[in-house]
Amino acid sequence: MSRLLLNCDIGESYGNWTMGLDAQVMPFIDFANIACGYHAGDPSIMRKTVSLALANDVRIGAHPAYPDLVGFGRRSMACTPQEIQDLLHYQIGALDGICRAQGARVSYVKPHGALYNDMMANPQQLRSVIQAIAAYDRELPLMLLAMRDNSAAQAVADEFGVTLWFEAFADRAYDPEGRLVSRQLPGAVHHESQRIIEQALTIARGDPLTASDCSALRLHADTLCVHGDNASSVEAVQRIREALDRQANP
Amino acid sequence: MSRLLLNCDIGESYGNWTMGLDAQVMPFIDFANIACGYHAGDPSIMRKTVSLALANDVRIGAHPAYPDLVGFGRRSMACTPQEIQDLLHYQIGALDGICRAQGARVSYVKPHGALYNDMMANPQQLRSVIQAIAAYDRELPLMLLAMRDNSAAQAVADEFGVTLWFEAFADRAYDPEGRLVSRQLPGAVHHESQRIIEQALTIARGDPLTASDCSALRLHADTLCVHGDNASSVEAVQRIREALDRQANP
Amino acid sequence: MSRLLLNCDIGESYGNWTMGLDAQVMPFIDFANIACGYHAGDPSIMRKTVSLALANDVRIGAHPAYPDLVGFGRRSMACTPQEIQDLLHYQIGALDGICRAQGARVSYVKPHGALYNDMMANPQQLRSVIQAIAAYDRELPLMLLAMRDNSAAQAVADEFGVTLWFEAFADRAYDPEGRLVSRQLPGAVHHESQRIIEQALTIARGDPLTASDCSALRLHADTLCVHGDNASSVEAVQRIREALDRQANP
Amino acid sequence: MSRLLLNCDIGESYGNWTMGLDAQVMPFIDFANIACGYHAGDPSIMRKTVSLALANDVRIGAHPAYPDLVGFGRRSMACTPQEIQDLLHYQIGALDGICRAQGARVSYVKPHGALYNDMMANPQQLRSVIQAIAAYDRELPLMLLAMRDNSAAQAVADEFGVTLWFEAFADRAYDPEGRLVSRQLPGAVHHESQRIIEQALTIARGDPLTASDCSALRLHADTLCVHGDNASSVEAVQRIREALDRQANP
Repeated sequence: MSRLLLNCDIGESYGNWTMGLDAQVMPFIDFANIACGYHAGDPSIMRKTVSLALANDVRIGAHPAYPDLVGFGRRSMACTPQEIQDLLHYQIGALDGICRAQGARVSYVKPHGALYNDMMANPQQLRSVIQAIAAYDRELPLMLLAMRDNSAAQAVADEFGVTLWFEAFADRAYDPEGRLVSRQLPGAVHHESQRIIEQALTIARGDPLTASDCSALRLHADTLCVHGDNASSVEAVQRIREALDRQANP
Repeated sequence: MSRLLLNCDIGESYGNWTMGLDAQVMPFIDFANIACGYHAGDPSIMRKTVSLALANDVRIGAHPAYPDLVGFGRRSMACTPQEIQDLLHYQIGALDGICRAQGARVSYVKPHGALYNDMMANPQQLRSVIQAIAAYDRELPLMLLAMRDNSAAQAVADEFGVTLWFEAFADRAYDPEGRLVSRQLPGAVHHESQRIIEQALTIARGDPLTASDCSALRLHADTLCVHGDNASSVEAVQRIREALDRQANP
Repeated sequence: MSRLLLNCDIGESYGNWTMGLDAQVMPFIDFANIACGYHAGDPSIMRKTVSLALANDVRIGAHPAYPDLVGFGRRSMACTPQEIQDLLHYQIGALDGICRAQGARVSYVKPHGALYNDMMANPQQLRSVIQAIAAYDRELPLMLLAMRDNSAAQAVADEFGVTLWFEAFADRAYDPEGRLVSRQLPGAVHHESQRIIEQALTIARGDPLTASDCSALRLHADTLCVHGDNASSVEAVQRIREALDRQANP
Repeated sequence: MSRLLLNCDIGESYGNWTMGLDAQVMPFIDFANIACGYHAGDPSIMRKTVSLALANDVRIGAHPAYPDLVGFGRRSMACTPQEIQDLLHYQIGALDGICRAQGARVSYVKPHGALYNDMMANPQQLRSVIQAIAAYDRELPLMLLAMRDNSAAQAVADEFGVTLWFEAFADRAYDPEGRLVSRQLPGAVHHESQRIIEQALTIARGDPLTASDCSALRLHADTLCVHGDNASSVEAVQRIREALDRQANP
């Protein structure tokens, strides 16, 4: 990808419960990571979300999770490698079914919550995810965290012929390895709009960020993860979008 | 279809619970109606069931249901037409995802339990099912109950360009319209092996059955629904299979 | 009960999803109908909701539902009388367990959504609900819709020794029998604040309302059902509360 | 308790799926650990299981689990201490509700599967469980694994005034600390009936077992955990019961 594209978790309502300002944020993003029913999203929500993505010419990604609706997929579960692959195929397929009924297709995969974190922390689990995608359709890229050193992930992806799309965060502090600083720690999340935009622009230029130990951290990112939770985060997405567009077309 | 093919509900285990003698019945059937997670079947069970079907050269059908695991999809639920379509797309897609990881595809759809019964009883719901299949892939036939008069169903199917595969039962009594006599009534289910085989052969020949009011009932069936619940039902399937083969190749 | 008390459905959040302004409406109500996990409410939400009710000296009612999280308990399900009783015992007990850990107890039962509607429409289901309550604890009243003629419900309640608490609505139009006019019909829901308060006061005085056919409809209500969904409904509850208090203590 | 009592996991069917020979094993046991809906057991299964326990004069224990039906509660989930307490209150209460409708009560608590294992491995989680029981009803004992050194568990139990009931296994090998040898290792499970009975009698006498490193391991057990999964395990339970009775009344 030639410019820094924006991805956003979306379609995280469920039944009668609404979450996120999907319609408001959709015009400003490039990739919609759509919940597949295991942590959020039911078939009707998924249909509406796919429809909204298509109307905004946003690419559709499967956002599969552990089967934990009450925990919103944020609690690690001790699944076997085979279980991981099976639940990925089920959820990607389910979203693909919803897409297909609208003439669309899933075009990438980004695991959600604890499944994402466990994949980044555990090489065996990353391997299971990549293997699952390869078995489903090796044309589907996997979206994952851009780190200082992505060589281990890249080697597994190459083995299976799966493309990796690396994502970075404009509103989070990084440790020297390129991991996100835990939200439990002070300074982990940036709140000032100007700082967020500057971090986005720095990442887009390929310039190094300053990690939590003040070392320089250069991340090669294809996409930036943004949030559509509320009015202020949507406004931040709009401003990031505009700043990136200005930088790309000065 | 030129000969009477056998279809069987299958893959109805869930997690740690086992149901049905899937491996034993699979060699004798042509179509496996595979549960998609809403009334039975989890991603791992679905993977194993698809694998078993492929090993036995059995065609894979989606067997979607109302979202009612504890009720095994046997309780009618007041879903809207749109909800029906959405839950069909989700479940068909999920099974297709599991299939795809094994290089296979769903090749037809047969609703399960109360969803099947409601579809047969309610023209609006039948329309929703057919419309959902057409949107997903109009190459997928819908399997439904062969009645005395299938013209209404056929008209809707023609409107959407969907093929219908009609199924009959060798072990059930029929009312004059070709509906199954309720299991609550005496004589609704045939238990004697010889009678079941004779009914199968009669249906295969296209000869009329005797309905519950003693009228002649001619059913045009593409497939016969058989059961793999236990050893005696599997044995019945084997005997039906052999009897049909002898009749077809005397 | 000597004055018209206010009841409100509450604790209808789930996991990461928030619904209703529970903390804002709680100070103005007398009875909190707390979701028990089948249509909304998880154990942690239930704990917080019970705690909030206790802090506001509000009585805790179990608000059990059909097992239909994605449908928010609003879709009728074909459950047997025995299943109805079992799911009531499970849910009432679960909420009682959460209460007990805080030194409290469930003090009445009000079915939710489709379970409530089916109970009002189907005498067999009403009987199942009353029988279930009697088996659990005949000291727990059942809250149900005040109709023109409550004698059939009262007869069943008397047979089992269960108290009935009748509820009315200040914001809904009634048919001549005292059933709520369907929300699908025009004029079914009152939106003007003044009209809602007047209907509340009329019910509190025991004066007749005007039914949808212009006949006089006298409802003997113990409690008025109010809503805490959003800021304007909470404001309406506050105004109803104040109007009722002024009427009771002029 | 003066003699070695038998406890068994029971009521682990779900909806249409059957697991375990509950009716056959019930006559030989003293404590029924009844599933509460999170890993197995639905309200109707729970009612039947409670009824069966009462008919056999067997004491009823709550057998709560992580919310993981598809994983049968065997997968560890990263729950917070507060979540652990909430899900315990919900499940114990739910079973208590089912019991109450039959004039019975839950009389102890034994966590299931991964919740049990995590409790034994993690002192914070053990504390959460004990605290949850104390808040619910400090008269309910907690059933847990008898180890060589139970002093840490005992100290927490004493702090909250909760009784501990220690259980041992007749069919499992132990490590020197009194933990069960992992099922993944050879020799972890005893299969010979005679050896199982001898281990049961040794435990009942308070004599030491031989641990996996050949050291002597003395376990002070109140109860022995037995299994009703299939015909041979039920027969083993019967033989253990008879051997213990003969030893107690020679």
